[in-house]
Amino acid sequence: MLPEEGRTRVIIESVTPAVDGGRFPIKRIVGDETTVEAVALTDGHDALSCAVLYRKEDAAEWIEAPMEFLGNDLWQATFRVQELGVYKYTVHGWVDHFKTWARDFAKRVQAGQDIAVDLQIGARLIVEAAQAAPAPDAAALAAFAEALVAGGPEAAQQALSEELAQLMARHGVRKFTAAYARELTIVVDRERARFGAWYELFPRSTAATPGQHGTFRDLEARLPYVASMGFDVLYLPPIHPIGVAFRKGRNNTMTPAPDDPGSPWAIGAAEGGHKSIHPQLGTLDDFRHLLSAAAAHGLEIALDIAFQCSPDHPYVKEHPQWFRQRPDGTIQYAENPPKKYQDIYPFDFETADWRALWEELKSIFEFWIAQGVRIFRVDNPHTKPFAFWEWLIAEVKRAAPDVIFLSEAFTRPAALYGLAKRGFTQSYNYFPWRNTKWELTQYLIELTQTEVKDFCGPNLWPNTPDILTEYLQYGGRPAHIARLVLAATLGPSYGIYGPAFELCDNRPLAPGREEYLDSEKYEIKAWDIHRPDSLRGLIGRVNQIRHENPAFHANHNLRFHDIDNDQLIAFTKSNADRTNEVLVIVNLDSRYRQSGFITLPLEELGLDDHQPFQVHDLLTDARYLWNGPRNYVELDPRHLPAHIFVIRRKARTEQDFDYYL
Amino acid sequence: MLPEEGRTRVIIESVTPAVDGGRFPIKRIVGDETTVEAVALTDGHDALSCAVLYRKEDAAEWIEAPMEFLGNDLWQATFRVQELGVYKYTVHGWVDHFKTWARDFAKRVQAGQDIAVDLQIGARLIVEAAQAAPAPDAAALAAFAEALVAGGPEAAQQALSEELAQLMARHGVRKFTAAYARELTIVVDRERARFGAWYELFPRSTAATPGQHGTFRDLEARLPYVASMGFDVLYLPPIHPIGVAFRKGRNNTMTPAPDDPGSPWAIGAAEGGHKSIHPQLGTLDDFRHLLSAAAAHGLEIALDIAFQCSPDHPYVKEHPQWFRQRPDGTIQYAENPPKKYQDIYPFDFETADWRALWEELKSIFEFWIAQGVRIFRVDNPHTKPFAFWEWLIAEVKRAAPDVIFLSEAFTRPAALYGLAKRGFTQSYNYFPWRNTKWELTQYLIELTQTEVKDFCGPNLWPNTPDILTEYLQYGGRPAHIARLVLAATLGPSYGIYGPAFELCDNRPLAPGREEYLDSEKYEIKAWDIHRPDSLRGLIGRVNQIRHENPAFHANHNLRFHDIDNDQLIAFTKSNADRTNEVLVIVNLDSRYRQSGFITLPLEELGLDDHQPFQVHDLLTDARYLWNGPRNYVELDPRHLPAHIFVIRRKARTEQDFDYYL
Repeated sequence: MLPEEGRTRVIIESVTPAVDGGRFPIKRIVGDETTVEAVALTDGHDALSCAVLYRKEDAAEWIEAPMEFLGNDLWQATFRVQELGVYKYTVHGWVDHFKTWARDFAKRVQAGQDIAVDLQIGARLIVEAAQAAPAPDAAALAAFAEALVAGGPEAAQQALSEELAQLMARHGVRKFTAAYARELTIVVDRERARFGAWYELFPRSTAATPGQHGTFRDLEARLPYVASMGFDVLYLPPIHPIGVAFRKGRNNTMTPAPDDPGSPWAIGAAEGGHKSIHPQLGTLDDFRHLLSAAAAHGLEIALDIAFQCSPDHPYVKEHPQWFRQRPDGTIQYAENPPKKYQDIYPFDFETADWRALWEELKSIFEFWIAQGVRIFRVDNPHTKPFAFWEWLIAEVKRAAPDVIFLSEAFTRPAALYGLAKRGFTQSYNYFPWRNTKWELTQYLIELTQTEVKDFCGPNLWPNTPDILTEYLQYGGRPAHIARLVLAATLGPSYGIYGPAFELCDNRPLAPGREEYLDSEKYEIKAWDIHRPDSLRGLIGRVNQIRHENPAFHANHNLRFHDIDNDQLIAFTKSNADRTNEVLVIVNLDSRYRQSGFITLPLEELGLDDHQPFQVHDLLTDARYLWNGPRNYVELDPRHLPAHIFVIRRKARTEQDFDYYL
Repeated sequence: MLPEEGRTRVIIESVTPAVDGGRFPIKRIVGDETTVEAVALTDGHDALSCAVLYRKEDAAEWIEAPMEFLGNDLWQATFRVQELGVYKYTVHGWVDHFKTWARDFAKRVQAGQDIAVDLQIGARLIVEAAQAAPAPDAAALAAFAEALVAGGPEAAQQALSEELAQLMARHGVRKFTAAYARELTIVVDRERARFGAWYELFPRSTAATPGQHGTFRDLEARLPYVASMGFDVLYLPPIHPIGVAFRKGRNNTMTPAPDDPGSPWAIGAAEGGHKSIHPQLGTLDDFRHLLSAAAAHGLEIALDIAFQCSPDHPYVKEHPQWFRQRPDGTIQYAENPPKKYQDIYPFDFETADWRALWEELKSIFEFWIAQGVRIFRVDNPHTKPFAFWEWLIAEVKRAAPDVIFLSEAFTRPAALYGLAKRGFTQSYNYFPWRNTKWELTQYLIELTQTEVKDFCGPNLWPNTPDILTEYLQYGGRPAHIARLVLAATLGPSYGIYGPAFELCDNRPLAPGREEYLDSEKYEIKAWDIHRPDSLRGLIGRVNQIRHENPAFHANHNLRFHDIDNDQLIAFTKSNADRTNEVLVIVNLDSRYRQSGFITLPLEELGLDDHQPFQVHDLLTDARYLWNGPRNYVELDPRHLPAHIFVIRRKARTEQDFDYYL
């Protein structure tokens, strides 16, 4: 069967960036550039022209960015997204008959051939363009056409003029334009989607009096402490009523004491469910007050969304069809046979009533968005259907495009990335278990230099209430510092669970286990945040360095460097115009002083091979003069296991006095 | 907006093989296996099952091949295509509730838990399956369900029986099955599409009397010669009437002598066009007789299809709208400004009458197919629209799936591969200009080990009437032998243009040019095919070796090996069951003896590190006993610049007498 139009002669392939061929959106931040490349070609020797077309999803008109030819059938254009929301982009290409004509005409003129007929051919193309062009350009084109038809020595010069080329690029009649088979999608988020330092704490552990249940008011009193460390996001575990049936006791035991507070993730009790607040924390008004107070300290509150229910959750009675029934009439609790988690009822996403379930779960986000929350950390999203998240996140962001979703999918790569592709703004990932130089290098290259960078926003956490890695257990304070510096400088987003982190709590539940002993998940803790050995001051300094150095605000600009000691890792980052170049070196050995020679690519870093340059340690304010590509480094974990250098190039003043910029 | 069905919980991604995500078909030969892999997963901890579905395009029912779980969310199945034509395949996946239940049930039993309720849950799933199963299996399932409900010590054993697992794998009720987003396509060709030795000659140069215009009858007399060299395909340049207007003279000059025959590619004259035969070659009856005579010699005739016209072609008068008109009323001839090719009128594929043009061009293939031709070599397909070829090849092969198209797209990679993706069975490629070890290795890996292997069938030509490479010019006879062996052993399909090749004609038109001097394109040649220095005997031996050793019949099984001399290249190939393992070593230096040590991966080759093995040179019948992975090789271009070894493993008989198999 013949195609509708057989004269579309340009083919367009391999458009990048594209996630799974365009099935999923790429992610950008307001103001970001997107550089689109495409393979485009036509049969024979005709010249073609290509353009990227892009628009806000709801805009009627495409904006066109002409593409530049890079050689070997590759074309490129860059455009910038300026607004929150969803953009579309695609590529068009067409045989450009005037460009072809002008290219060939120049060769004929140079060869001294008879050009009389060729001038007429060119004039025809110009007249055709003039007929469709707006008034002033139409007149200019008509004048060119006349000059060509007139012939004579002037005609060839007019035909090849830059003015005519530009007029024809704008108005040349495009026929049989080929469009790339797909319209690709960009989700544009706000800056916090990429850059931010997160701090997680349990509000109930913030009471002034040890052992008392902390309240939102207590948490407000803790805000200056969190803000003093320079964090951007304060993330709270679930704040809802906690079930009593099968409540877990301290250290995840099945035998709770009467006053054990239970796990905040066992959501729902007589007092309410996912839209209610635990009575001992305060009221909805208290919560809204907390949001304002946090904002006044430069902190944005992130809430935990865990779609599961305690047996006491109101949903269990109101919507029993949302849970799986067992033949004995009981409801199916969570299991990992032979383990039973009888305090948790998972939703049955295969329920016939799935439409109502989905809508209700969406309304939970909408409820908290209405209170002013814009960041959600989603618990175990990989245990709910992928299609559900793709729908939910798109729906929520259509109404509120500034909402950020952090995925806690500590699971296999295909599931972790599958959720990121379906809309999660950021993802926890395998950073906690990447501890050697080889592991860190390979993994960060995967996150920042492969196509993963277009859909998966990493958020690097050295610890969480569930994760106290063996590296932190055995490495103690130096390990905590090293992992803090790595998380804060390898990624634009990172977070810690405190005060366990800054107080270097490294006691595991048992040897070989990664859970904290006396985990805050099951009890109220009284942390001595003023302990003199706290990392509070260092954390504050690191976050200040992050804020002041734009090199740390991006994700794709990471570059590892050779250093001849496997315990030392070194990398640079820079901002777009390379006015801010940082060099981080970390000693991964928590016990011993390590030293070695680092080799830097001076030319790529904009440094002069014949001039010394200064590396200025922003952690200690120490300055070193370095010479040439190879320089000595030494780090002692008992002192400080990391350098965060800014590289300062040498500048000479008229007084011949040296400055480093 | 909610999806139609939100309970489809399995996601299926990254299905391979797939060309451009499934936009284009993969290619296979009748009897080939296709191993499909997919990433498939579901939320949570439920077990899933996956299957590849495949069918002949016009078959009503899918055939299902269960997929095996390879770990890390990767699934795999292999199936075989048995018929010529077009196949479809895709992947399905579903949450397998019985598999989940049985896995968990086994753990509960092992942990000694109460399983009463779980037996009932399992029984429910079995009853559900029994209701949909055919009679004997339904009864068996019902019996299992009863046994489970009955409980007791027998029940658990029955529940975990292999028989029940198999019954449930067949009949378990599948709900919410996920289908991969795309149905992928396979084009299945006959064996000659992959494996064949081609020989190109000009029929007009086959007359017994030098200087006379050869005929199809003369060509028939030449068939035993071609067959004696073991070729499979005899490819003829265009056999149509040749235009007289602007006819080219000898050596591509603009001043032909009255008796110059013209280029066969200047198609069309008063005697007819693309469906006519040059009167001096013979009649259509003669041509059909030639086809039969060739077949009797084991040779299949391939015709050249060149979609362009001489100014004398009947189309020019009958369909002037198929050509571009210039303002002076003349027809636009082919150009590469400032060069003019006034003997050639290209078709204007932007004509408003493109539908009629396409249909007419298709009818040219149909005409020759009706005469019995099944192989076409297409001249410069990259100067006609890509969409045209995609349509034409699909249409032609729908009626005649045994037709083979060879693309002569000596152009940029995106165009060469773009045409292969759109249906060309085989492609000329850059092999003529890949002469060093590094070049050959990189390029052949691209052709045989990357996704290119799924859509682009290479046909390797050391020379063509247009291509006499500098390597052949300067290297003379040893270079011809080396390139012959490389072409014939690196690829299952290869070809030579003779007798220029076997007679080692290496005179270029001028220094720095790649055209032959006194090119056969513009004159009738009288070749002395009986010259004693002809490569005829060697070529015959090489083609015999190719036929007798199935390792040479495949394309993906190429493996290069380390040899410590850059002038020596070494590679192995083997057949599917590894009963035929060949090792080719070529000296790329046409002047000097070269020697070195080759290192072979003995274990991968099925050889014993502690036993000698034999390499048997099929060119010379020499046999060498080799020991261990490193062995010495020496090749002298003045003698023979290549080994084609078959590797013979040692076998011990009951008489303790050594054989090599």
